[in-house]
Amino acid sequence: MKLRLATPGPTEVPQRLLLAGAREIVHHRSAEMEQLIHEINEALPPLFGTTHPVYSIASSGTGAMESAVANCFSPGDEVLVVSNGYFGERFQAIGHRYGLVVHPVESPWGTSVEPGAVAAAYAEHPGIRGVLVVYSETSTGALNDVEAIGELFRDTEVTVVVDAISGLLVHPLPMDDWGLDVVLAASHKGFMLPPGLAFVALSDKAWQAAERGGGPAYYWSFERLRHFYPMSASSPAVSLLLGLHESLKMLAEEGMDAFRGRHALSGLAVERALTALGFTPFIRPPHRRSHVITSALAPEGVDTSRLLKTLSTRYGLTVTGGQADLKGKLIRVGHIGAVDALDLCGVVGAIELALLDHGHEFAPGTGVGQIIRTFNRQGE
Amino acid sequence: MKLRLATPGPTEVPQRLLLAGAREIVHHRSAEMEQLIHEINEALPPLFGTTHPVYSIASSGTGAMESAVANCFSPGDEVLVVSNGYFGERFQAIGHRYGLVVHPVESPWGTSVEPGAVAAAYAEHPGIRGVLVVYSETSTGALNDVEAIGELFRDTEVTVVVDAISGLLVHPLPMDDWGLDVVLAASHKGFMLPPGLAFVALSDKAWQAAERGGGPAYYWSFERLRHFYPMSASSPAVSLLLGLHESLKMLAEEGMDAFRGRHALSGLAVERALTALGFTPFIRPPHRRSHVITSALAPEGVDTSRLLKTLSTRYGLTVTGGQADLKGKLIRVGHIGAVDALDLCGVVGAIELALLDHGHEFAPGTGVGQIIRTFNRQGE
Repeated sequence: MKLRLATPGPTEVPQRLLLAGAREIVHHRSAEMEQLIHEINEALPPLFGTTHPVYSIASSGTGAMESAVANCFSPGDEVLVVSNGYFGERFQAIGHRYGLVVHPVESPWGTSVEPGAVAAAYAEHPGIRGVLVVYSETSTGALNDVEAIGELFRDTEVTVVVDAISGLLVHPLPMDDWGLDVVLAASHKGFMLPPGLAFVALSDKAWQAAERGGGPAYYWSFERLRHFYPMSASSPAVSLLLGLHESLKMLAEEGMDAFRGRHALSGLAVERALTALGFTPFIRPPHRRSHVITSALAPEGVDTSRLLKTLSTRYGLTVTGGQADLKGKLIRVGHIGAVDALDLCGVVGAIELALLDHGHEFAPGTGVGQIIRTFNRQGE
Repeated sequence: MKLRLATPGPTEVPQRLLLAGAREIVHHRSAEMEQLIHEINEALPPLFGTTHPVYSIASSGTGAMESAVANCFSPGDEVLVVSNGYFGERFQAIGHRYGLVVHPVESPWGTSVEPGAVAAAYAEHPGIRGVLVVYSETSTGALNDVEAIGELFRDTEVTVVVDAISGLLVHPLPMDDWGLDVVLAASHKGFMLPPGLAFVALSDKAWQAAERGGGPAYYWSFERLRHFYPMSASSPAVSLLLGLHESLKMLAEEGMDAFRGRHALSGLAVERALTALGFTPFIRPPHRRSHVITSALAPEGVDTSRLLKTLSTRYGLTVTGGQADLKGKLIRVGHIGAVDALDLCGVVGAIELALLDHGHEFAPGTGVGQIIRTFNRQGE
């Protein structure tokens, strides 16, 4: 059975990138690696909207989140953690682990956090050192307004840390313009690569925070990353860097506007398809949806846990469901990276097949028709 | 020009493993991944000589070193750090970063540390919580007697942490038998994979140390690794796990005795070859040499920095030299992983060609002849 992924990450890796990663390993202190790293280091910053270097670390995205906490804050420092899903909660957990005084700014799962609520929390806790926020919260599909949040702290000493692990590339994130201080990303999302590589970009204000001290950090140490830059501080994940080099070429070939347009259209198409099949979009205005995934509540009588099981065992398609209270109720269809209209026909086709298997009744093609309708003439 | 590696890591990755890593990405919570992880988790512990689980982390080896320090010790804890090279110094640096009171047990670069010196330091500092030691010190090629060091602390509460990043597989390391508590390894050494995956195995005593508390740790948290085991705590480096699965098969096919025998023979062959070319082995009895690399001091008049430059630019071969004071004097020929007699003919052939380029005089074949002599009839 052919296996397919429609998850928020890891995403399907295009064959071109898989094969680039399967090239012979070059030594991390060789001239070939210097050239490779040089080209990667040139190409990454514009994607983060920054003139500062972007550091690569062999790690999953969680490590990048920890690096921000470990470097920029000290035990006892107060921070706001904007939290409207699983990854916001992870930021809180990491903050607690490092002895920070965490003030959560919480908003229900399925909503975007109001920048006004962040401003109010800041008024209440004017001594905070930082604000930690997830851009695209993939546990729900909500997007947070990090532009407005950045604006709130532009002329302050508060360090704004953005987990853009899934949001980068898919949504605009001009870090310097928006006054964001630490922007975190990872390889297995918009970069279309396997997991194992994380990215960190830092503003001058973030460096000041890091230089004031912080928790203990060696592998995550920003100072150490800077010291070894442009090369890696530790043995780099060479095969992933070879893939990244090719991924950056693919992104340049498509162009970021087209890349983002394709994701927006994918989100729209899947939302229409699921709606036509009786699902209810989970993120609704005025809340902002991420184009990384489309999340929707199942129609009455459909248990999404069973549906997802059928999708994977019978059709080889991995789709994720809801976490915590949303288990069995939510479906989260990922369409980040190298996903096109035809892939989405297959994904929605599998969902239709599985729904039919479960005795749900509708005219076959109801969902896929919306994918075709949405992409019709878009290529012209 | 064809590029080749004769370094202590990253090592050349066999095509079979490169292609395994280039397979389609499976989702980290899927049934396919469960099966893959299950097989990996079954195969790893015997290689560490333990009945305990071995945890995999997306990270380079340095991260594994940090994980041991972060979990097992608290600020103010006293530890001995056995140090006879670059990686021993790194353990000291990480210890300092975490506020430990580090008592170095130092021995010159190019020597093995005397277990007696460790015993003496323990007598002097009976309140130590741990001992940190590098098994195979690849900055010099010395092997430390971690069996004897383990024995010293067997019936104590002192946690023995072994950086076996390059030493594992190449040299015996029956962790449980030797009373070692934390054993660290990485993918890009004996496992013949690209860098990006680290391994941690823990004894009951190590768990007790971790449960007493430690520094802050989230990504490195042993507790978190155990909580999610057998699956990964964060997005795993899927492509490297696919490669690891295949690497474990290759290791089983060869058998660990044959694997170790091959490395011992490679070390002997390269040492003879370099000696015949006028080099002086750097690690000499009673000090123990690692079979990961062969290190040797250049003959009078040969600047190894220039020699290595010629090797890489003219012959595409990366060989490493000496660090710090040994720069320009030392050559370190790596032969860990999938290296065979014919590869070594090429490596020594390149060294002969480069020496001739630099005006050094000898009968061509002097070095390579020793490789052939050493492997002659070994295959029978």
